[in-house]
Amino acid sequence: MDFELNDDQRAFAEAARQFSQEQLLPMAASWDETSTFPKDVLRKAGEMGFLSLYTPTESGGMGLSRLDASIIFEQLAMGCTSTTAFMTIHNMVTWMIASFATEQARSECCPKLITGEWLGSYCLTEANAGSDAASLATRAERRGDHYEISGSKAFISGAGDTDVLVVMARTGENGANGISAFIVPADAEGISYGRKEPKLGWHSQPTRAVTFDKVKIPVHDRLGEEGEGFRFAMKGLDGGRINIATCSVGTAQQALNLARQYMTERKQFGKPIAQFQALQFKLADMATELEAARQLVRFAASKLDKRDPEATAYCAMAKRFATDVGFTVCDHALQLYGGYGYIQEYPIERHFRDVRVHQILEGTNEIMRLIIARRLLSEDTGLL
Amino acid sequence: MDFELNDDQRAFAEAARQFSQEQLLPMAASWDETSTFPKDVLRKAGEMGFLSLYTPTESGGMGLSRLDASIIFEQLAMGCTSTTAFMTIHNMVTWMIASFATEQARSECCPKLITGEWLGSYCLTEANAGSDAASLATRAERRGDHYEISGSKAFISGAGDTDVLVVMARTGENGANGISAFIVPADAEGISYGRKEPKLGWHSQPTRAVTFDKVKIPVHDRLGEEGEGFRFAMKGLDGGRINIATCSVGTAQQALNLARQYMTERKQFGKPIAQFQALQFKLADMATELEAARQLVRFAASKLDKRDPEATAYCAMAKRFATDVGFTVCDHALQLYGGYGYIQEYPIERHFRDVRVHQILEGTNEIMRLIIARRLLSEDTGLL
Amino acid sequence: MDFELNDDQRAFAEAARQFSQEQLLPMAASWDETSTFPKDVLRKAGEMGFLSLYTPTESGGMGLSRLDASIIFEQLAMGCTSTTAFMTIHNMVTWMIASFATEQARSECCPKLITGEWLGSYCLTEANAGSDAASLATRAERRGDHYEISGSKAFISGAGDTDVLVVMARTGENGANGISAFIVPADAEGISYGRKEPKLGWHSQPTRAVTFDKVKIPVHDRLGEEGEGFRFAMKGLDGGRINIATCSVGTAQQALNLARQYMTERKQFGKPIAQFQALQFKLADMATELEAARQLVRFAASKLDKRDPEATAYCAMAKRFATDVGFTVCDHALQLYGGYGYIQEYPIERHFRDVRVHQILEGTNEIMRLIIARRLLSEDTGLL
Amino acid sequence: MDFELNDDQRAFAEAARQFSQEQLLPMAASWDETSTFPKDVLRKAGEMGFLSLYTPTESGGMGLSRLDASIIFEQLAMGCTSTTAFMTIHNMVTWMIASFATEQARSECCPKLITGEWLGSYCLTEANAGSDAASLATRAERRGDHYEISGSKAFISGAGDTDVLVVMARTGENGANGISAFIVPADAEGISYGRKEPKLGWHSQPTRAVTFDKVKIPVHDRLGEEGEGFRFAMKGLDGGRINIATCSVGTAQQALNLARQYMTERKQFGKPIAQFQALQFKLADMATELEAARQLVRFAASKLDKRDPEATAYCAMAKRFATDVGFTVCDHALQLYGGYGYIQEYPIERHFRDVRVHQILEGTNEIMRLIIARRLLSEDTGLL
Repeated sequence: MDFELNDDQRAFAEAARQFSQEQLLPMAASWDETSTFPKDVLRKAGEMGFLSLYTPTESGGMGLSRLDASIIFEQLAMGCTSTTAFMTIHNMVTWMIASFATEQARSECCPKLITGEWLGSYCLTEANAGSDAASLATRAERRGDHYEISGSKAFISGAGDTDVLVVMARTGENGANGISAFIVPADAEGISYGRKEPKLGWHSQPTRAVTFDKVKIPVHDRLGEEGEGFRFAMKGLDGGRINIATCSVGTAQQALNLARQYMTERKQFGKPIAQFQALQFKLADMATELEAARQLVRFAASKLDKRDPEATAYCAMAKRFATDVGFTVCDHALQLYGGYGYIQEYPIERHFRDVRVHQILEGTNEIMRLIIARRLLSEDTGLL
Repeated sequence: MDFELNDDQRAFAEAARQFSQEQLLPMAASWDETSTFPKDVLRKAGEMGFLSLYTPTESGGMGLSRLDASIIFEQLAMGCTSTTAFMTIHNMVTWMIASFATEQARSECCPKLITGEWLGSYCLTEANAGSDAASLATRAERRGDHYEISGSKAFISGAGDTDVLVVMARTGENGANGISAFIVPADAEGISYGRKEPKLGWHSQPTRAVTFDKVKIPVHDRLGEEGEGFRFAMKGLDGGRINIATCSVGTAQQALNLARQYMTERKQFGKPIAQFQALQFKLADMATELEAARQLVRFAASKLDKRDPEATAYCAMAKRFATDVGFTVCDHALQLYGGYGYIQEYPIERHFRDVRVHQILEGTNEIMRLIIARRLLSEDTGLL
Repeated sequence: MDFELNDDQRAFAEAARQFSQEQLLPMAASWDETSTFPKDVLRKAGEMGFLSLYTPTESGGMGLSRLDASIIFEQLAMGCTSTTAFMTIHNMVTWMIASFATEQARSECCPKLITGEWLGSYCLTEANAGSDAASLATRAERRGDHYEISGSKAFISGAGDTDVLVVMARTGENGANGISAFIVPADAEGISYGRKEPKLGWHSQPTRAVTFDKVKIPVHDRLGEEGEGFRFAMKGLDGGRINIATCSVGTAQQALNLARQYMTERKQFGKPIAQFQALQFKLADMATELEAARQLVRFAASKLDKRDPEATAYCAMAKRFATDVGFTVCDHALQLYGGYGYIQEYPIERHFRDVRVHQILEGTNEIMRLIIARRLLSEDTGLL
Repeated sequence: MDFELNDDQRAFAEAARQFSQEQLLPMAASWDETSTFPKDVLRKAGEMGFLSLYTPTESGGMGLSRLDASIIFEQLAMGCTSTTAFMTIHNMVTWMIASFATEQARSECCPKLITGEWLGSYCLTEANAGSDAASLATRAERRGDHYEISGSKAFISGAGDTDVLVVMARTGENGANGISAFIVPADAEGISYGRKEPKLGWHSQPTRAVTFDKVKIPVHDRLGEEGEGFRFAMKGLDGGRINIATCSVGTAQQALNLARQYMTERKQFGKPIAQFQALQFKLADMATELEAARQLVRFAASKLDKRDPEATAYCAMAKRFATDVGFTVCDHALQLYGGYGYIQEYPIERHFRDVRVHQILEGTNEIMRLIIARRLLSEDTGLL
């Protein structure tokens, strides 16, 4: 048992920290204000390997573990939560194609996704299939050597500005077993995009609905076999949950650092507010819960890397806990800033807005509780 | 002891409800999106008496109690938090002038403030005097029959778009006893306004810094005597805290109503999410804490009306509790909405943004705790 | 709307306070330590009218409102939580007999219950019918002019030391409509009592299981009609919840007072711990939540008195909130006492043990949430 | 980075689990009820090595790391919190003597402490020096080749039933630098013991005050040099905090397991309560926070093993978080048990009582926050 980063992990973290400080942090506020999707910086992230962290090396990726990726994403999220969160989605898309696509599709897509020449979106959620993803209604009808996809997806990150979509669509029966996954060019005929959704945060990544109207996809752009889509989605989600939990940890660390600094500078009643005991206690609790969250995220990532049979439940725990703590820490940081926390001249309110969605997506924290409880109450549980 | 609204209160509440539904609710989202300060609707509120609720009838106001005002503001806040919060500030300004100004100043200002022909801003906070208001540095130097005011105020609601300012400035020694209050025309020579602060919420009221450079004010525009300013400010704050607490209660009620409605409509896993027990429990807790908050606010308002010696502490309790509960309820409502809670097409994220500042202003909730604790630990405490 | 006690209520509160200070407070620790059921003091309470607070005057009771009773019980609970909680149960029994019994039974029981010559127990809960009270299995078979009751009741307060039992038993179909209520002499043939249950707190009232083996009860000792039992039980529960919530408020007030006093006396790091800001904040929060709880309890009691159609839901809110706050306040008081909070030489750990059960009985706080949610989500809800 | 137990750790855990199940679990309730200090079982623990886990092998101890010890104590605490907590204190005493005593004292004491032939108590706290340990008033006056110790210690675990005391006493100036540590035979002339303190929990270990009246101690029974006592105490506390945090984790795990089992067996409304979603969510949160606590404790133990400069702050975090979570989990387990949670026939209320003191001792959780905040706000902080 060893809780320290190894040499490689330290080097990864340092490279990510530097990239985050230089490429993300200085721009994050302006991307937020202007809702800019920073494709150029994403490409630079690609050069660093940050777009293919756990894509297998055979496909040109970095081949890192989920734990390594978490260490890296945490640093990146300190610079820009929203952009890093998009990177994690792109990483998932790239990994999914690298892992399950046909040789032809893989060799076509992966090199471009890895460098960021192409960006990817992940199309699972539908307006009526959020928490209950397995009820999705988008259909892919087999027509000889191609499929025709029709239906609508909602809340798709990057949609309208990305190049390739991984789309979950129903090829068979109702429920999870009738779902297949497809690679779809973002500009395929029959695809249309909704308006860019104004949202509370995550402004540096566009969110749009995507409508598919008889979009033709060759059979070799299906991932795996028919009916395997939901299984891929679930595999992706475990990692996705680690990633989003990590984005909360990184953002909360940034907010904590800012609050700590602010407390030593801001004076009231003739002394720095850092000297007020009740505020010290608040800061201590923020740090404590954040460290607990970080350790739980890393623990869960490690379980996923080891293919532990309870990895899904541990990932759900990490996602639930770290995203709740992440929000709470940002909320407290905002309070410590007082009126300055509420105005957009300071970064805190952005952190507060950005992390809030982490409690909702990749499965709401309510769904996380269901997943955890189901395993806890199973007869064959190996949890705890 | 009687917890029911009397006939007058019912009538006030109904009038306010109707105004809120007709004049505020339909526009609130657009005022938020475009940062519009709705002067025309504020004037309509003036016609209804909503701009002078507890201004004495002698000065043309409604002469209502703080409790009555709370009942009215709660309804208004259900329509638009931010606009109602501005109304409460305007009410405070009007009340303060009506209560403490010279006859000349009162007769000049009150009629116009009551109708909303003029709008008022309240200038207490400075960049370096937030929680520690008594340390303010803006000075008013006596020069014969006028004063020259110089200094800067921060986070001033309405500033730049209002007509009259009540300004706290130092005329004497350091500390609370050296502060006096003045009525200052918003367009007086020597006043300049900062840029409109972009902020997390409260978009329908502009917030600006105000700088005074030797602004000349005749002596008869001073409120009360020299050195009484801080006392007026503190009296104003008790009511201000009831008001802001009330805005949280009203907003949270609106968010709760929306969440309740949404739960009966939104289906997942084949049934309305209202049928999921864990979500039912969440809703029940939201309602319970909200009702507790409402009762505590009304209790404190009643203590203020009765000039109870512990009114300040009870107002602090009400402000602390109701603004915390208000935010929590809106946060849970957002979570119940899931992804739809995060996008601006739905009103929940606005409620979430708007109520957040209530935990900060009119004295942060940390200052509330200090006030409460000080009374609890006094030898002569009559609290609880 | 008026939040102040009226003259009568002040007088009741003062009489109760005096009784509590003189008769309960000095003995509470020893009753706890020795598990003594203080029948003599209960009889003195009877002399004061405390055993028949809301029993109608026609039956010899005080005929007070639930709100009045809450004001009184709060004072009593400050002296001894456990004994006061028993009084509230006895009050419920007395009220139920006075309200629903035949003239014969009423005139036989009420005078003795009112004075405390007889004490009463309430037999609803069964080992397998806790939260789901309507599933109770104890049966009462009609045999001519009497019933034969057989079955077992669990967790019966006072059982084995009381004189009369109100017993809920099934006379008809499954479910709530098949239940009737009976008055049963505690020493009737066929009744046996289990051992006195050692429990975490509430030591001054014995808790035992009661087994009925063909216990014969004349028909005129049935309350109301056959099948009305569950309705009586539910009516009793609304008031029971106000009562138990009140016991939490009173106990928490006592714990808060003790902690406040202790903080001014206990010195660490060279000064009274009352001077540590973080502890001040804790105390302020305890007081704030307690006051909110008190107001919510009184509000709900008032709704019950007015027979508001939503009274059941408001009582559930009050019970949920006040018993949670009551426990939290006692828990924080214990923490403020440090090591002294953990030893039985000081009263805090008793308060902590005693209030804990309030979150469980009279319907667990989980059942309260169900009740509240059901009303909130009803189409015809008048809540909030 | 590796979160899995290694082979040795698995073996230790398994041995401890077996001991816990066989020797502690079956007796814990009766030790609690009868306040029995199980010396015989402690001796068996000694045979297993559990009384000298991190005592250096040179002195005959197991020489394990703090992390290893935590893994072992967690298993033991699942069987009996109170007895395990005493073992951790005994371990600290043994380690302190082995590490800092003279060769003579070490060779005399260690063999007997390691086997449990002797049991040890740790005498730091005084009635007026709790959180502010450095203000202790017990004095040791040098008289030639011995010291005379006079003063009183409070809340001493095991006192009156143990054989050797490690006593902190003032040999010099006020404050931390004037404190020295001594080994004192429990039956030395001039020592007297107070009555066994009745307390909320931890019944299987006696707690007494200890009074020293000119107790003569040879110089060679001093630990280290004069003035080093407080430093030893602080070193001991870091480990002590890991230990007590671990006892909370183990107890909470036991309570969680019981609640989980109970939920599958207890039926209400016609089905096991495990099927109620709100209770499932509660269980999921208990498990999640417990796992976070476990990881944070192990992380801090590892920092202590590595002599990380921030180990003290991490230990404080682990102690604060794990003891709070431990109590919350036991409290929720009690609630899930309903009425059965409140009676002593079931073990839950004992767990609830036992873990409560962990939030108080080894430095209250308020002191933990001070320690954490101090490091966070230091200029040279390496935290987080």
